[in-house]
Amino acid sequence: MATSTFERLDLDCGVTLAPVEVAYETYGTLNADKSNAILVLHAFSGDAHAAGEGGWWSSMIGSGKGFDTDQHFVICSNILGGCRGTTGPSSINPETGEPWAMSFPVVTVADMVRLQKMLIDSLGIKKLLAVAGGSMGGMQALEWAVAYPENVGAALPIATTARHSAQQIAFNEVGRQAIMADPDWNGGNYYGRKPPARGLSVARMVGHITYMSDASMREKFGRRLRAPDQFEVESYLQYRGSTFVDRFDANSYLYITRAMDSFDLTQRDTLAALFEKIRTRFLVISFTSDWLYPSYQSLEVVSALRSRNCDVAYCNLASDYGHDAFLVEVKEQAELVRGFLASTLRGVEQHA
Amino acid sequence: MATSTFERLDLDCGVTLAPVEVAYETYGTLNADKSNAILVLHAFSGDAHAAGEGGWWSSMIGSGKGFDTDQHFVICSNILGGCRGTTGPSSINPETGEPWAMSFPVVTVADMVRLQKMLIDSLGIKKLLAVAGGSMGGMQALEWAVAYPENVGAALPIATTARHSAQQIAFNEVGRQAIMADPDWNGGNYYGRKPPARGLSVARMVGHITYMSDASMREKFGRRLRAPDQFEVESYLQYRGSTFVDRFDANSYLYITRAMDSFDLTQRDTLAALFEKIRTRFLVISFTSDWLYPSYQSLEVVSALRSRNCDVAYCNLASDYGHDAFLVEVKEQAELVRGFLASTLRGVEQHA
Repeated sequence: MATSTFERLDLDCGVTLAPVEVAYETYGTLNADKSNAILVLHAFSGDAHAAGEGGWWSSMIGSGKGFDTDQHFVICSNILGGCRGTTGPSSINPETGEPWAMSFPVVTVADMVRLQKMLIDSLGIKKLLAVAGGSMGGMQALEWAVAYPENVGAALPIATTARHSAQQIAFNEVGRQAIMADPDWNGGNYYGRKPPARGLSVARMVGHITYMSDASMREKFGRRLRAPDQFEVESYLQYRGSTFVDRFDANSYLYITRAMDSFDLTQRDTLAALFEKIRTRFLVISFTSDWLYPSYQSLEVVSALRSRNCDVAYCNLASDYGHDAFLVEVKEQAELVRGFLASTLRGVEQHA
Repeated sequence: MATSTFERLDLDCGVTLAPVEVAYETYGTLNADKSNAILVLHAFSGDAHAAGEGGWWSSMIGSGKGFDTDQHFVICSNILGGCRGTTGPSSINPETGEPWAMSFPVVTVADMVRLQKMLIDSLGIKKLLAVAGGSMGGMQALEWAVAYPENVGAALPIATTARHSAQQIAFNEVGRQAIMADPDWNGGNYYGRKPPARGLSVARMVGHITYMSDASMREKFGRRLRAPDQFEVESYLQYRGSTFVDRFDANSYLYITRAMDSFDLTQRDTLAALFEKIRTRFLVISFTSDWLYPSYQSLEVVSALRSRNCDVAYCNLASDYGHDAFLVEVKEQAELVRGFLASTLRGVEQHA
């Protein structure tokens, strides 16, 4: 993992972060004209470690895979507000020498993308071949296409939306309230002490349910018992909740879910108007059993793109895995991505 | 509200509660031959106050309504393990003079129904014209039909299931963990002190999301703001969570959700075998947007009944209200119930 430090980042809220650090990893080799770079954008609880052993999208990124590192140079950075190497609420505020905690400024998806743009610029990459991500990573992909249309050849927003629904906000709010209800949260001031492990664990349990589908939970757990008075699904959720605490910061949970909830491309203009002058190609993917980011949200984006004659392919992939499908349904997704990137590349070469 | 006290109740867990109290209300007049009684069964957080001002099913019970109190004698009792007048964890353990708290014995849906049967017997009613309820009330209706087929003319299980799925168990488990994560829960010993208000509130917030549908939340809240940094849906859920604490006991939450999760008619035999000798008529109702108790769960019951040639009508009512539909979709539901009760009554008269 590498880290880049930038002098300053002006945020949507009016505050300037100075300096700001961004953690990232790269896979494959950047070609001579720097035209083979793909920025992969992680979801809510992901990090820069996208590929290789334990990488969150290792099934999709690598030699001969959907994002083929034999051909492409793949970059993934930890998001602003995160807790895996990029500046966030657990970072030290240089003015006080203490962790920012809840004095960290409010960040948006647009801020995250602005920082990514600085990273891409610093690598000397003028135009990304593609930006791609699922869930909150898909929001960033959409933001990239709208904010920097000249710098993005293709965008792959997967299992995502141009704006959170009331239900999506509601689930995030339950997580936030669970964290803030934990006395160990202590107004966000828990660094160096006991973190709000119980609250964060409950928040993660809710999240996990929304990432799976009714069918995948039935298949995975059914009504099987783990102990005479405990169902397997209970023990699984408790385990996933409690281990999450070891790798995630509760304040980052609050800031990042807030950024997701506030993300709304339609606040700037209609989607159609936003896509008016975009020449970026799109591959939009959703999954049939994803009830957290239902297909109609992807279709909203697709319809707006089509209404402006943008180059867009849309696939609603059949899957029982719910929202997790974008991480685990590899075969069809990889083929779609591979084909889409190949045709994007042909377009680039024709224009060159 | 009336209260009946019974000497003893033998529970499935092997423990005997002695004595046991049950709170109930009645509406309408019991006829001379006591053949017009309908037992209405409340859902998870309901109580005996089903009809009249503030009654949880007042839209469905009353003069000229679905359950017409001009014709029928409607009874509703608070469930065993509850906190609204019937013996539960907040009741005093006569042996210690202290609240039971977590030393209250484990209760099941079958135990709840056994207590209701004692109440019905004590009112001199040999056979109920009907049992009816939604959600956990529907589980009780199914249990009544299976446990006391001779004593139930008709059963109306609404928006319910013969057994909880992994997803339903999972959502309940999140609520339980949220309560137990609250230090004020204190192992269940909080009576006379500060109750685990924050934990119970988070649990209720999760519940509320599952009771609504994506569409009804969009309609009711959308992305409207309540304050510059607060969505309406957040403020609504926080309000509903915090007020729930005033009327509900956290330990009852634990015991009752546990009873729901452990309910599984198919543990005794296949549904078809259980329905083999039942002469009870059935009206099964589900709602199209109810994703917490999806239609396939009702259909499982309907298919088993049909396979044994039972008299069953099934309706999957179109509604955007999600699981809450059984409480708020009055018009069609009331007409279905009215027609079904009338034909049940005709059957009773023909046989008399």
